[in-house]
Amino acid sequence: MDTTNGSLNRKLRMALVGGGSGSFIGRVHATAAVLDNRAALVAGALSSDPVRAKSSAAGYDIPLDRAYASYQELIESELAKPATERIDFLTIATPNHMHFPVAKAAVEAGFNVVCDKPMTFDLAQAEELQKLVEKSGVVFAVTHNYTGYPLVRLAREMVQNGELGEIQCIRSNYIQGWLRTRLEASDQKQAAWRTDPTRSGAAGCFGDIGTHAYNLGRYISGLLPKQISCHLRTFETGRALDDYGHAVIQFENGALGTVTASQVTHGRENDVTIEVDGTKGAIQWRQENPNELIVRRNGSAHQIYTRDPNAPYFLPLAKSSCRLPSGHPEAFFEAFANIYRAAFDAMILRIEGKSFETKNTIYPNVYDGVEGMYFIQQSVASSRENGAWLPLQHQAARK
Amino acid sequence: MDTTNGSLNRKLRMALVGGGSGSFIGRVHATAAVLDNRAALVAGALSSDPVRAKSSAAGYDIPLDRAYASYQELIESELAKPATERIDFLTIATPNHMHFPVAKAAVEAGFNVVCDKPMTFDLAQAEELQKLVEKSGVVFAVTHNYTGYPLVRLAREMVQNGELGEIQCIRSNYIQGWLRTRLEASDQKQAAWRTDPTRSGAAGCFGDIGTHAYNLGRYISGLLPKQISCHLRTFETGRALDDYGHAVIQFENGALGTVTASQVTHGRENDVTIEVDGTKGAIQWRQENPNELIVRRNGSAHQIYTRDPNAPYFLPLAKSSCRLPSGHPEAFFEAFANIYRAAFDAMILRIEGKSFETKNTIYPNVYDGVEGMYFIQQSVASSRENGAWLPLQHQAARK
Amino acid sequence: MDTTNGSLNRKLRMALVGGGSGSFIGRVHATAAVLDNRAALVAGALSSDPVRAKSSAAGYDIPLDRAYASYQELIESELAKPATERIDFLTIATPNHMHFPVAKAAVEAGFNVVCDKPMTFDLAQAEELQKLVEKSGVVFAVTHNYTGYPLVRLAREMVQNGELGEIQCIRSNYIQGWLRTRLEASDQKQAAWRTDPTRSGAAGCFGDIGTHAYNLGRYISGLLPKQISCHLRTFETGRALDDYGHAVIQFENGALGTVTASQVTHGRENDVTIEVDGTKGAIQWRQENPNELIVRRNGSAHQIYTRDPNAPYFLPLAKSSCRLPSGHPEAFFEAFANIYRAAFDAMILRIEGKSFETKNTIYPNVYDGVEGMYFIQQSVASSRENGAWLPLQHQAARK
Amino acid sequence: MDTTNGSLNRKLRMALVGGGSGSFIGRVHATAAVLDNRAALVAGALSSDPVRAKSSAAGYDIPLDRAYASYQELIESELAKPATERIDFLTIATPNHMHFPVAKAAVEAGFNVVCDKPMTFDLAQAEELQKLVEKSGVVFAVTHNYTGYPLVRLAREMVQNGELGEIQCIRSNYIQGWLRTRLEASDQKQAAWRTDPTRSGAAGCFGDIGTHAYNLGRYISGLLPKQISCHLRTFETGRALDDYGHAVIQFENGALGTVTASQVTHGRENDVTIEVDGTKGAIQWRQENPNELIVRRNGSAHQIYTRDPNAPYFLPLAKSSCRLPSGHPEAFFEAFANIYRAAFDAMILRIEGKSFETKNTIYPNVYDGVEGMYFIQQSVASSRENGAWLPLQHQAARK
Repeated sequence: MDTTNGSLNRKLRMALVGGGSGSFIGRVHATAAVLDNRAALVAGALSSDPVRAKSSAAGYDIPLDRAYASYQELIESELAKPATERIDFLTIATPNHMHFPVAKAAVEAGFNVVCDKPMTFDLAQAEELQKLVEKSGVVFAVTHNYTGYPLVRLAREMVQNGELGEIQCIRSNYIQGWLRTRLEASDQKQAAWRTDPTRSGAAGCFGDIGTHAYNLGRYISGLLPKQISCHLRTFETGRALDDYGHAVIQFENGALGTVTASQVTHGRENDVTIEVDGTKGAIQWRQENPNELIVRRNGSAHQIYTRDPNAPYFLPLAKSSCRLPSGHPEAFFEAFANIYRAAFDAMILRIEGKSFETKNTIYPNVYDGVEGMYFIQQSVASSRENGAWLPLQHQAARK
Repeated sequence: MDTTNGSLNRKLRMALVGGGSGSFIGRVHATAAVLDNRAALVAGALSSDPVRAKSSAAGYDIPLDRAYASYQELIESELAKPATERIDFLTIATPNHMHFPVAKAAVEAGFNVVCDKPMTFDLAQAEELQKLVEKSGVVFAVTHNYTGYPLVRLAREMVQNGELGEIQCIRSNYIQGWLRTRLEASDQKQAAWRTDPTRSGAAGCFGDIGTHAYNLGRYISGLLPKQISCHLRTFETGRALDDYGHAVIQFENGALGTVTASQVTHGRENDVTIEVDGTKGAIQWRQENPNELIVRRNGSAHQIYTRDPNAPYFLPLAKSSCRLPSGHPEAFFEAFANIYRAAFDAMILRIEGKSFETKNTIYPNVYDGVEGMYFIQQSVASSRENGAWLPLQHQAARK
Repeated sequence: MDTTNGSLNRKLRMALVGGGSGSFIGRVHATAAVLDNRAALVAGALSSDPVRAKSSAAGYDIPLDRAYASYQELIESELAKPATERIDFLTIATPNHMHFPVAKAAVEAGFNVVCDKPMTFDLAQAEELQKLVEKSGVVFAVTHNYTGYPLVRLAREMVQNGELGEIQCIRSNYIQGWLRTRLEASDQKQAAWRTDPTRSGAAGCFGDIGTHAYNLGRYISGLLPKQISCHLRTFETGRALDDYGHAVIQFENGALGTVTASQVTHGRENDVTIEVDGTKGAIQWRQENPNELIVRRNGSAHQIYTRDPNAPYFLPLAKSSCRLPSGHPEAFFEAFANIYRAAFDAMILRIEGKSFETKNTIYPNVYDGVEGMYFIQQSVASSRENGAWLPLQHQAARK
Repeated sequence: MDTTNGSLNRKLRMALVGGGSGSFIGRVHATAAVLDNRAALVAGALSSDPVRAKSSAAGYDIPLDRAYASYQELIESELAKPATERIDFLTIATPNHMHFPVAKAAVEAGFNVVCDKPMTFDLAQAEELQKLVEKSGVVFAVTHNYTGYPLVRLAREMVQNGELGEIQCIRSNYIQGWLRTRLEASDQKQAAWRTDPTRSGAAGCFGDIGTHAYNLGRYISGLLPKQISCHLRTFETGRALDDYGHAVIQFENGALGTVTASQVTHGRENDVTIEVDGTKGAIQWRQENPNELIVRRNGSAHQIYTRDPNAPYFLPLAKSSCRLPSGHPEAFFEAFANIYRAAFDAMILRIEGKSFETKNTIYPNVYDGVEGMYFIQQSVASSRENGAWLPLQHQAARK
């Protein structure tokens, strides 16, 4: 018999930290987490402002008695509940500087965590968090959500299958235009914290979206990085952080990668593109048209692989990441939900006392989060030295 | 304070009829209806096979005591519940021939209904259903889901605003390839009932997808039809219904429309396209790339309107049909959910005893359902007379 | 040794009738004919106005003594020249009503002819011309230039090879917008004669571009037509001919075709598209992106065949129609030149006294021209009878 | 009266050096130069092999008495002819290492020159050639042919007009796949010399196509370069030159540019793309779809500017670079011919003894050629120092 969450036979209980009115990503998490009817949002600490934390609850259908004034209260109160009511996991959708304290408290309390990216404010926090997760044994996912698209996963599987041969070049771009003007000057909420070094971290554009582009190449290729040379720029006068950046990455196997990120290119929306070249084939993907993967091999026609779970070229992980038949487009929410889906599988194993993979997970995990923070740190450092090559190898990196 | 369903301040309670294992569209309804956290699926009669009806319930997280063996039992039992527990609406996701009996029973019991398309088995049933709905006063939506895409709604608003001038030509195509072979011969469930006249109705391809293409043109243009000349074909030998069809439509204002539908075009997935030409501008849209609307006017560059709720060209209905900022693609589920969203607004007004629009609704309604059945009937009849012009005016039609 | 025109070892001598200042298509012919250095433009009767006929010559580098005041003078004078100087062929690029008299005179004089489309003013002229050509034995080509694109030719070869199986559906569209306003009222030269029944013929849009769309489907599929049902419209008030039209075509083998042509769709330029569905595969092509052919087969990825003469999928005729390696786009002139190239091959055989194919030629010929005129005649007649089915079989038609 | 080459009233006489059988680019030059009927190919030294030099002549319709055995013989013999017969210009289409000696001889003899790129074998030759050209006063064009596309020229005009504001970012890619295998090992002619340091120069991929990508960005933006950091790679084992490369360029105004070139990306044909970001707008162009330019500005729909000479957005140079109305695609030959067209205008002025622009020319000139060689030299040098920043300012550079 097919039941919700299989042997667990119930929905997982979710708490949301962040996501109060004006938030963008909180609502995305709340929608994605429940898309498959495998979880229910039952508690929240939706804002650092206690009044707004309460008043935002009804919009999420969170009962008032579980609409907490702070994340500390949330954790304490939920721990006090019987296991049959207590939340199973906590999602962190706050500005960056709050990721670590919330995650630390949740992990130490034994709650599974889904954390937005970048994982922490700096590398030191990230490395500490890694140790805490290893110690506590919780499931910890980081929402590098673009890895949730079925065709991105197919690309990764193709690489792992050897269909593209050895990977030699990666070109990864993330181009936006919304910060072409200094929106932060008019106090637009999204712009304000993302361009503020005290809330966003050492990097602006490269922390917000460059990390996604870098992670995407790493996820698909599995190549281990060796060195980085980076050039960050702030093109809008008066802005406190970078709004454009470019990095060259040398991988251990000799491959060459580039990452370009922009927030100042007129008219571009959320244009994540990646090209990966191997000795046997090359692929190309664009987030704004996510149901297609272009696959090319010399001597053959250009091939457009669509998100067709029944196609002969579809591989198991990509197939299990689909909800609809081909031609019925899936998009951003579903990709986001695929991160949750994989994390849920691990959470259930943990709840049932079974062992589960923690490093080579389908979902981006705490190790990927550490690597992301290292990428940001070394990007900023290299850029300060005018693009000097700096190491990018980190023990946390996985293939 | 922002609450779930506003003044109602609670989720709507949903029952699902159909959707048992092997179903495609049942799962779509269940996902779309709850996407905005405004409804919860609490009851179901998931299959005409009582055993499967029960066994499918856990997969939807429906409690066993509300997993009914038949739609009759569902309606009877739910009516017997106190108003605070009773379902608010019932979704019909069965094969076509069962739409009418279920809808009739639900409407007569006073339940709001969301019904898949085509609305009934034939026109007589549709016209009877219209009367029943008018009598009972329930909210009745038909899921011509392609009208839920924000850019389709924008197109309709542009027409209503006069931005395209008078509409003179509509070219609407719905091209698939999955029935290129006789899948029904191997008893594939989706193919089996869709190609069976006793379950699908008088038309195959034209009933299943031709109606969508026709409805889409009607929705965007608001033009009233006058006459139809139609040519249906069955290209796969041994198939009992049409698998290809083409209709020419004469509109009352003198406009000329064409509708082409195919289930036998190799490699095409779910390729709904529409072009609408007006005296002041012309638009083009494709379902497989739904976040773009191409707008053209002589003397200007080709314009790609994207699903950008903050764009100056975005109009109110399109804007309220978005969940994500531009560049973060939305797709099939969200469009489907937009039909529900509009129907929910009407249901809440009804629950609260307020008046609500029943004819010129945002969501496709019982009148559109009637018109769809008339379109099928006249298509089949015209085709039998080798494309003779037959009337297509129906009192139910709305602009 | 590779020489110009092989065994002939010299360029062919060309005369141009029409093409005076303000002409569009005359310059296209002059450019395309010499693109491969196989012909030289040496004489002309460039305008029906004798003064302009002379004054336009220098722009084509035609010596003044061969810039004739009329086509009659041209033919007479050239006939009087020694064979070593005399023109080999004559290109007709006048408005439609002059095609026949010029062609008749040229054919009777024994000159090879390249004639723009539609071939004549009406069917009677076309049938008479066919007889004259058969009697004289000249090479006669009609510039249905879209058949000259390498990927269109590849499509035809694929059909002939059986790669697409039996052809069952053809959807052919030719969409323009330039006549959305009544340009003819402001005496714009191109618009003026094309909308004038005394110079253009019985049809406007359908004669000018509908014939191209029809011919393209016939060329690729080789299917023989049986009947036509057509609907022509004039959407711009005051216009004397149709500016929009749609035809349904029944082919002898049971296939169903549609042809849609528009001159009034805002912002569309020269948008010829065709889709051909067979039992084994389906193809799609668009003139504005002519170096790609989309090929689809159920169970495979969508394939983009590019104009790559070295690709394994390229077939001989398509290959011999290329001048550049893949990725170096070819376009309108080259396709036009491919019509000339094939006609030149036949002219050389004739000059050398060898036999040459006259019916199943690579280039569109007098029989295709006859069929085009029959298509126009029957389209107009059917439209006058509100889309009545009329025969479309003509003895001239070839596979 | 409109005459060939206006006041000159005759065709220009052209000689071709290189282009013997097996050549690709020689035929391109021969076709492009005569496309507008403004020049005739009358002489040639088509191969370094005297026998092949003769035997290739007939294929170009060059009379045997002007089919010279060497470029030296060509120059000497043509100088000896009367001015009314003598060639006006000489096109160099040999492998790279022969460009300089031929160009030097031609320039010193006072012949105008059209030279393929890269202009010479190394920078020293280029700088010497610049001096020779300055001394002799001949017209000297270098076929960076991608600057000939009308929409590339429109982009340049838009920048010059200030429509894009200040340019801050350039992303220029040139991606091919044909050298994914070591074609040179099988002695394929094109591959053999391009991968041979004694014939190609210091760089392989970056010399052959990287220079084009760099030049394209420079042409459109007019930004002056300051420094370069480059990384070249040879991914095919045993190859003697780079087959992949990436450069970061710092411009004097603070803008950041990147150039990526590949010959080893499976399935990519001749994929030149460029994106230019300014403070007021951003543009995107792709050579394989050359009739479109995407123009974006925050707050507006994405705009597709097509090659429409009558569009309000078209500017004078772009307009004068068109031969066909919109929707009738132009492509590679026409762009190439536009380089010739601009050079012809200068040649005629020189022939008529008038002054003509030599530095800020429409066509790429000897100064651009020098800069291209400097780009190659500094790319190779920077790459050898692991991407060290090296100067890229050269006195020859123009805006």
